Amino acid sequence: MTDAERVTVVGPEPLRRFVARVLTTLGVPESDAETVAEILVEADLRGVESHGTTRVAGYVSMLRLGLLNPRPKVVVLKDAPSVAMLDGDNGFGMVVAKHAMQVAMAKARAAGIACVTARNLTHTGMVGFYPMMAAREGLIGLAMNNGPAIVPPFGGRTPTFATNPIAAAFPAGAEPPIVLDMATAMVANGKLRLAAKKGLPIPPAWALDRAGRPTTDPEEALLHGFLQWAGGYKGFGIATVVEVLGGVLSGGLFGTDVPPLKVFGKDPLVSSAFYLAINPEQFMPLDEFTARVDRLRRQIKSSTPAEGAEEVFVAGELEFRRHTERSRHGIPLSQVVHRELRGLAEDLHLPFEL
Amino acid sequence: MTDAERVTVVGPEPLRRFVARVLTTLGVPESDAETVAEILVEADLRGVESHGTTRVAGYVSMLRLGLLNPRPKVVVLKDAPSVAMLDGDNGFGMVVAKHAMQVAMAKARAAGIACVTARNLTHTGMVGFYPMMAAREGLIGLAMNNGPAIVPPFGGRTPTFATNPIAAAFPAGAEPPIVLDMATAMVANGKLRLAAKKGLPIPPAWALDRAGRPTTDPEEALLHGFLQWAGGYKGFGIATVVEVLGGVLSGGLFGTDVPPLKVFGKDPLVSSAFYLAINPEQFMPLDEFTARVDRLRRQIKSSTPAEGAEEVFVAGELEFRRHTERSRHGIPLSQVVHRELRGLAEDLHLPFEL
Repeated sequence: MTDAERVTVVGPEPLRRFVARVLTTLGVPESDAETVAEILVEADLRGVESHGTTRVAGYVSMLRLGLLNPRPKVVVLKDAPSVAMLDGDNGFGMVVAKHAMQVAMAKARAAGIACVTARNLTHTGMVGFYPMMAAREGLIGLAMNNGPAIVPPFGGRTPTFATNPIAAAFPAGAEPPIVLDMATAMVANGKLRLAAKKGLPIPPAWALDRAGRPTTDPEEALLHGFLQWAGGYKGFGIATVVEVLGGVLSGGLFGTDVPPLKVFGKDPLVSSAFYLAINPEQFMPLDEFTARVDRLRRQIKSSTPAEGAEEVFVAGELEFRRHTERSRHGIPLSQVVHRELRGLAEDLHLPFEL
Repeated sequence: MTDAERVTVVGPEPLRRFVARVLTTLGVPESDAETVAEILVEADLRGVESHGTTRVAGYVSMLRLGLLNPRPKVVVLKDAPSVAMLDGDNGFGMVVAKHAMQVAMAKARAAGIACVTARNLTHTGMVGFYPMMAAREGLIGLAMNNGPAIVPPFGGRTPTFATNPIAAAFPAGAEPPIVLDMATAMVANGKLRLAAKKGLPIPPAWALDRAGRPTTDPEEALLHGFLQWAGGYKGFGIATVVEVLGGVLSGGLFGTDVPPLKVFGKDPLVSSAFYLAINPEQFMPLDEFTARVDRLRRQIKSSTPAEGAEEVFVAGELEFRRHTERSRHGIPLSQVVHRELRGLAEDLHLPFEL
């Protein structure tokens, strides 16, 4: 058993408090620190560990290297009834993204639909968090962002896009909301990083080596190779949409202009994003809409499983299950992450009671 | 050489006129007939033959069987500054879709962003047509629609979604616009149908047989099997977004409530759709936006090709090349389609001069 496989079960609340404390100690305002801690622990609760507290040490490193602005002045570049443009001043991407989605939601409530772009963000963490904010309040949410040039176009080998995640959430009634949260690359870089941390091989469809051949070595893929797009040119096509809406329309950096990222925490991580909200009540009573989402969900769930499959899953379903389970029984934190956090506590002279 | 491989080169203008004439003869109003002819021939020009005039015989059959309303009363169910809802009354999907996108464009010009849903459509043809309308006028366009329940959820085998296409177009400056137009299934059903018409095998990643095994037989896949999603659960996730925005939000049929389609032209083809337009001028001067799109395009094009690849392509690029080539030299119509159209001419006592 490797250190990455050994786990310590920790409570979400102490973990949240500890992460926030680390950040405030480094000069991050309290409410921003709480937002970052909330989103990271939410990722751990949902089982999206690649975007959870495994990132804290990297953020701390970015703060110390001046790659992340602890006290950004977020600028509103444009504010109209249905659109807004923000500049995040290289602060925590999560803080700006949450704010951008709140603005989009408020505007969509009145106008029916609204979008907000945000440029000069750093890492925005688990992108599904922002649409879920909308779904909790009866709105449809959509989020996407670009980032460091690490993935080549389909058929090429010059790093040009990030993994360009896209996320959407739809409010439901009796059922949990439908939540899509995916990289348009077959996997997000975070999953390679986690596999590398755990010392585990990756499936050959996830990434290419430096020569463009499929590889099962996450280190080779991370340091010398490339990720692959989901569905080949189709995933690349969706990634292009993300690049234009997130990077081009926001007035931020895009494509090969975004500095590449090799080592998380040591290299700049610049991204730009697009947040959209739609108010279903402009189309029909909310009850009716959520009942229809429930009905769709039940239709999907009642599909006969394919030979060899036991159950058919709706987008976000496994994450909701994990969230319920982990909220009750705690988050199984890998020894690697646990040790990183303990190291930060010692370094910053903070109590460590996880 | 099969009949599907043998071609007759025809001019786009005579083809357009002939298709419109066929439809007006069957009671379709002239301007609607011209819209349908325009979109079908545009598909043939772009090399998207699966959604071109190969469909005419099927539409004629649908008109005769009462599955397609030649003179629909399109109802505006909702009309607000940033959103609208239409009911297409089972008319030609292409006519309603074009109208819906025009409405979205007009609203987006003023509000910055707008969306229009449309329910009770039939086939909307080449979905990329509608966003391209927006791009031609300096707007960003997005279109998606659901349809007959033919593709099972990822991991299931109960037909539940259509191939749920999604399309987007971005206006460019000196360069052609970027145009994504894809089914979220690895291929659209039309491609299986065309392969079947041509008597050609399909790649094993395109579809499953009745037992859920990969098949190279398009007939087996069409009549007894299933299509597969692009990127597995990721394509299914995007298809779910399309199903909610197109089917659920529109108040139309969705999921397993949409009648399945086995034989195009003989079975009902009901779909519902979502059209979105964004005005980049609300974010920056249009010149600046289109120059940025050009820059992104050039970045993609200048990627070093992967080993074995000769050139890297931007979404929609191959289609623009074909459009230029075929506008000049004519459309290579397969013998099968040519014979179908000739048959319609004889049947309807129309001159046939293609």
